[in-house]
Amino acid sequence: MFRARAEDFRTAGRRSYARSAGALRAPAVRGKSMQKIRIHTKSRPGIVYCGEGAFEQGYEETLAGKELFVVTDSNVARLYADLIEKYFGSAHVCVVPAGEKNKNHKTLFSILDEMVRARCHRKTVLVAFGGGVVGDVGGFAASLYMRGTRLVQIPTTLLAQVDSSVGGKTAIDYRGYKNIVGSFYQPEQVLCDPRFLTTLPKREIRCGLGEIVKTAALDAEIFDILQGATDFGLRFLEKLVPLCVRFKAGVVERDERETAGLRQCLNLGHTTAHALELDYGRRSHGEYVLVGTAFETKIALAEGVCKREYAERILKIVSRALPKMPRFPDIGSAAENALLDKKNSGQEKISLVVPKARGEYAEISLPLPTYAEYLKKIEGGLL
Amino acid sequence: MFRARAEDFRTAGRRSYARSAGALRAPAVRGKSMQKIRIHTKSRPGIVYCGEGAFEQGYEETLAGKELFVVTDSNVARLYADLIEKYFGSAHVCVVPAGEKNKNHKTLFSILDEMVRARCHRKTVLVAFGGGVVGDVGGFAASLYMRGTRLVQIPTTLLAQVDSSVGGKTAIDYRGYKNIVGSFYQPEQVLCDPRFLTTLPKREIRCGLGEIVKTAALDAEIFDILQGATDFGLRFLEKLVPLCVRFKAGVVERDERETAGLRQCLNLGHTTAHALELDYGRRSHGEYVLVGTAFETKIALAEGVCKREYAERILKIVSRALPKMPRFPDIGSAAENALLDKKNSGQEKISLVVPKARGEYAEISLPLPTYAEYLKKIEGGLL
Repeated sequence: MFRARAEDFRTAGRRSYARSAGALRAPAVRGKSMQKIRIHTKSRPGIVYCGEGAFEQGYEETLAGKELFVVTDSNVARLYADLIEKYFGSAHVCVVPAGEKNKNHKTLFSILDEMVRARCHRKTVLVAFGGGVVGDVGGFAASLYMRGTRLVQIPTTLLAQVDSSVGGKTAIDYRGYKNIVGSFYQPEQVLCDPRFLTTLPKREIRCGLGEIVKTAALDAEIFDILQGATDFGLRFLEKLVPLCVRFKAGVVERDERETAGLRQCLNLGHTTAHALELDYGRRSHGEYVLVGTAFETKIALAEGVCKREYAERILKIVSRALPKMPRFPDIGSAAENALLDKKNSGQEKISLVVPKARGEYAEISLPLPTYAEYLKKIEGGLL
Repeated sequence: MFRARAEDFRTAGRRSYARSAGALRAPAVRGKSMQKIRIHTKSRPGIVYCGEGAFEQGYEETLAGKELFVVTDSNVARLYADLIEKYFGSAHVCVVPAGEKNKNHKTLFSILDEMVRARCHRKTVLVAFGGGVVGDVGGFAASLYMRGTRLVQIPTTLLAQVDSSVGGKTAIDYRGYKNIVGSFYQPEQVLCDPRFLTTLPKREIRCGLGEIVKTAALDAEIFDILQGATDFGLRFLEKLVPLCVRFKAGVVERDERETAGLRQCLNLGHTTAHALELDYGRRSHGEYVLVGTAFETKIALAEGVCKREYAERILKIVSRALPKMPRFPDIGSAAENALLDKKNSGQEKISLVVPKARGEYAEISLPLPTYAEYLKKIEGGLL
């Protein structure tokens, strides 16, 4: 019901699916500087604390005095040694090696091993304290140990705060496929505190920016804010965290397990991003999402799904976030990776979620050769 | 709210928790020889087909023409080579080694590997065709691959038909702990066909009998049937399959994730069964459940939770199912294993679900030394 494929656009009626940001947004309980955003999913209600003081307040309300098992990575453990000592001194702290390449089953089972040794039980609160990798693999471990322990996410990167810590997707990469083994498991609490963003390197900021720009291509309010911004500095981006969280929460509430055709809107730009990431690696996920958003916007324009004026506005936002577009030789062969995307269930076609108009998106489906041809033309500057 | 611990029995009021079988039973849609039993859980509705023709009917309705990935074990693949060829000839068939010792992460990842190679996707139907191990590890793989594929269980053992295939618990054993890593994942369909029971060795029949006797200690109707039976032959036990399924379905519907204090009633006899199984191994799970049910009935009697007449009736049923009670030297030290049970979350006490009266059970909680002392006395014939 929610789907609108390219074929539809070419036939009578041109059915499409549009949502205004207002309709998708979860209600917020606004405080002075901190917001609590509730997520009511079928499996478990959750709450996201956003803003200054989120960490302390969440800690006091949910973690103090509980049996905790903290998963963090080597970078975060070093940067926040004092905080860990102060708040998690009496907890089991499991430090996994940092980096996307460690989001694998070896890391997962090392966490499970330590949970067994620590005699964790179902009421233990697993605290995933770190970026996207810690959140994904730590959340996964929490979902599996004794078929599920309690889970609190404390995301320390911009990407994790605006995107990956919210919504309950957990996973590891396996056999070269991103997130191919995982679970849906909602955290009971997510603490998005801007204090953790101050130590981020530039690359990490850009990484988060990728998901923010993607959200702008789905949500009118965030689009307007990014359009009107003079710079994309950290202070500015911090303010977008609760807006992105509310947008995502609204989507996840309506389609927790990506079965109703709605949640996949969050994959805008991601089919191409994942295809390139698999082939070229090295750059951050967020950069690939920026590239993917630009490529898929151009495809939407060429397919007649998106008007030129709006496409150009999206592209302008992307180019401000990523002034120098990387080069991708052999991009045609990278296109095949898109077939491995989870959305393309058993089809020989490539599904893309693309921008349509301000606050609206569409889903289009292209034969692989057409998609590959588009990528080559865009890379060659012909589109 | 549902819990009634031993302490309660000793204090004023003696709160206890009792359910009649009628209240817990899922509604059945009766056909001529086959029943369809619906399970409405929060996560996913499911349906269990019980009786002659269950396999063919379920196959026609759900599996024919679909993209299938079949998980089975070496025994089942040998015994049902013709059936597999006929019905699953065009499907990917993944044969895992038979036996409880293979319910581990190696087998799990070998299935996931083959799913990747077969390019399975979210709409692929994973068919777990075999006994409890195939169901548990196959169901687990289905829950994890792309965060969940479709799942149909075709249980081929009495144990799997009356118990493990229904209710959505999946798991592997890990680091010496039973089912410590797993998920809740409801199959959309379970096909319990008596045709598969005809090839079972005696040991497997007794294994299923363990869970049937346990259910009798919870459900008045099944208790009456077992009490009145003259022999426990396969034809007789087959008729109990839909009754046991309906009872379990009723429990699972009300407490899918074992969080409401109800589903753990299904662990009657299991705390002691698992403790002994960990120490002594070799015998079948069902035999340990029979032993556990006998031991825990005697404990309930000694604690004053269960009346002598009813306890003796339960013990009589157990002894007809297991005429020769095995011996357990050093049973006192085996008692410690009970602390590892998932029910005993972070407590130094042992929780037991014990028979109370016909169709009623109680939960009691004992300090470890008391529990160990009971086991020793019972083993020594003093209780």
